[in-house]
Amino acid sequence: MKQKRFLLTEDRIPRQWYNIQADMPVKPLPMLNPSTGQPVKAEDLYPIFAEEACRQELDTEHRWFDIPEEVVEQYAYYRATPLVRAYGMEKELDTPAHIYFKNESVSPVGSHKLNSALAQAYYCKMEGVTNVTTETGAGQWGTALSYAARLFGLEAAVYQVRISYEQKPYRRSMMQVFGAQVTPSPSMSTRAGKDILTKSPHHQGSLGTAISEAVELARMTPGCKYTLGSVMNHVTLHQTVIGLEAEKQMELAGEYPDVVIACFGGGSNFGGISFPFMRHVFSGERKTRFVAAEPESCPKLTKGEFRYDFGDTAGYTPLMPMFSLGHEFTPANIHAGGLRYHGAGVIASQLLKDGYMEAADISQHDSFAAGCMFARCEGIIPAPESCHAIAATVKEALKCKESGESKVLLFNLSGHGLVDMSAYDQFLAGNI
Amino acid sequence: MKQKRFLLTEDRIPRQWYNIQADMPVKPLPMLNPSTGQPVKAEDLYPIFAEEACRQELDTEHRWFDIPEEVVEQYAYYRATPLVRAYGMEKELDTPAHIYFKNESVSPVGSHKLNSALAQAYYCKMEGVTNVTTETGAGQWGTALSYAARLFGLEAAVYQVRISYEQKPYRRSMMQVFGAQVTPSPSMSTRAGKDILTKSPHHQGSLGTAISEAVELARMTPGCKYTLGSVMNHVTLHQTVIGLEAEKQMELAGEYPDVVIACFGGGSNFGGISFPFMRHVFSGERKTRFVAAEPESCPKLTKGEFRYDFGDTAGYTPLMPMFSLGHEFTPANIHAGGLRYHGAGVIASQLLKDGYMEAADISQHDSFAAGCMFARCEGIIPAPESCHAIAATVKEALKCKESGESKVLLFNLSGHGLVDMSAYDQFLAGNI
Repeated sequence: MKQKRFLLTEDRIPRQWYNIQADMPVKPLPMLNPSTGQPVKAEDLYPIFAEEACRQELDTEHRWFDIPEEVVEQYAYYRATPLVRAYGMEKELDTPAHIYFKNESVSPVGSHKLNSALAQAYYCKMEGVTNVTTETGAGQWGTALSYAARLFGLEAAVYQVRISYEQKPYRRSMMQVFGAQVTPSPSMSTRAGKDILTKSPHHQGSLGTAISEAVELARMTPGCKYTLGSVMNHVTLHQTVIGLEAEKQMELAGEYPDVVIACFGGGSNFGGISFPFMRHVFSGERKTRFVAAEPESCPKLTKGEFRYDFGDTAGYTPLMPMFSLGHEFTPANIHAGGLRYHGAGVIASQLLKDGYMEAADISQHDSFAAGCMFARCEGIIPAPESCHAIAATVKEALKCKESGESKVLLFNLSGHGLVDMSAYDQFLAGNI
Repeated sequence: MKQKRFLLTEDRIPRQWYNIQADMPVKPLPMLNPSTGQPVKAEDLYPIFAEEACRQELDTEHRWFDIPEEVVEQYAYYRATPLVRAYGMEKELDTPAHIYFKNESVSPVGSHKLNSALAQAYYCKMEGVTNVTTETGAGQWGTALSYAARLFGLEAAVYQVRISYEQKPYRRSMMQVFGAQVTPSPSMSTRAGKDILTKSPHHQGSLGTAISEAVELARMTPGCKYTLGSVMNHVTLHQTVIGLEAEKQMELAGEYPDVVIACFGGGSNFGGISFPFMRHVFSGERKTRFVAAEPESCPKLTKGEFRYDFGDTAGYTPLMPMFSLGHEFTPANIHAGGLRYHGAGVIASQLLKDGYMEAADISQHDSFAAGCMFARCEGIIPAPESCHAIAATVKEALKCKESGESKVLLFNLSGHGLVDMSAYDQFLAGNI
């Protein structure tokens, strides 16, 4: 019997995260304080994020960060996630490529987001914080934070992008089951929300508006900190547990990836699976390609401009050097809510600029077509975001079919799409 | 770090299913042909089910059945499912009990149902069948069969209980993503459906009506066989892979269950986890208790009558000796659609009669309260059916708290509830 799943025992769960900033040939430009124009220091971020997260954010020296024991304890409930050889998909595509995926959909909340939510909630708890707040697009991050907050005894308030709140009521329900308070954004509960709704009373929301509201809530509320589910360096740091596991698991499979593929919203699942492999490219040991799959309706990597921009609509965040479509960009109303963000994380932006990674634009139709094919071959209905990674993998696999090469493709299945079935309905009805 | 998950490597996945009929101190009474009153022979069932399933159904001699290699191949995608120590739940309940659960929710389709769907679809394929049909209540079985049919190249037609079809549109979508044709039952597509709708034009459907329709379709369609997701002996046989794995995993945990708990609809997940442990009770080696958790609104085990009854509303099936509320019983409109069946499987009925198992009636409110507590402690939102098992486990754990006993409790988490979030909404809104 051919082995399909490559597992790791509990004692092989990584105990450290990998900080790619220590190894980058060109370090990222600093974030800037918009009022002074000066580089941001960790202390400047303390009022918003957990302090340890702020230190991790700006650290370009330490290659490894210890994962707190309490976080490893929680990782052990679902990690290591399986590495799976997608034999069904290979057969369907009739490709000589070897396709592997890392199955992050098996996390309790259904996506990779929990990897960072646990860390951020833990740091907040340790620092005496009582309340956390955040934004959520598709709802994956909000769900993860709601559960992590609950585990560490914190109250959670989530601003959910209004269009997602309406399109995905089950996500809201999940957060509420975990005990979180959920508000559609833009809302009248913040200055930022009121300003947006005054200008556009029917604004459908974006990650940018929801971030503004959550940041404002954190700033204005004693004992409350903000947490972010992607974009920031410390979030990607926490997600490297994915790639570090995958590295060990590919070894068990006796292979090494030629191409690593992930969908790209702010960059956390992409960085999570890619960066541990990328360090061997920096060292000259390997020649792996890294492909970020973004929606063609939000093409920050292929059509954005590398520049300093805000992370949110209201301009509450520091200025960040990134590929951006502009912080007031309102993306098309696509189902992959997690990919509707105007900018790319600072690290990924620098790596794209320096040629270490590439981007593929995927149409919504192609993403769902790939997702359905995957579901029928592998049984897992992927999140609309993850469908983009699958579509990009299909392209690579078909190139292999043409060239006859048996390349090893590894993609990250960042989450399942079980609460996104209405999107699949629309695809099956021919409306996408 | 305390170990939470007990996994098995691929080579330790069971290669045989356990047939409890070979070991039962009192064998089940025969099924009867309703027109002749004579015991049913395997051949009598051939027009309906796969022939191998029919032989397994009536076999009281062979203790072990080999799992076909092609089925093991598919099991290997998700099995062995994890055995998890529910430390969070223990802490929440402040109980000295050790609580373990077998996590069947990690199967590709989200429940234990795939264990039998794969076997039945495989046998159909081997026997030259081209189409399969079935009924589904909550949608878990229909989803599993749809995917299994797809894997083995069969067309699937699913009759979904109308109330579930309307309450759980995401389940229908999942089946459609896997390529199945889904019809709400009762429908006008069969004689049985027409008869029911003539009498009750607004009939909300039941497993009994849907079974009648699917059986009729199978009988009337060349190359089409019927498959069933619970109740029948061969289905429970396939599900014993759960308990056989759990036995090995409990050994890894260094414990042995004092009480094994599962929810009970037709009995397949209950039998699946229980029967392998029950054989050691038959042999006198162990004194394990087995608790079947049923909804108090469909109390066939505690308030049903042990008698010969039909398995479906129209009376198409053989007469089966079972605890039943009557084949025309229409259960209350509860959210645990998988537990809304009027009768218990033949084997479980005999075991209940003979005192080898017991039953607990759970109110819908208690089931969701337990499910929410579990979700907040363990991160997994359980299926409404599985919530019944959790509620029964809570009762046992609280008894331990009272008595100070550190009993080992093992329950089956038969599936997740991610497509049942509207039920949780209603619970959180105080409507349940």
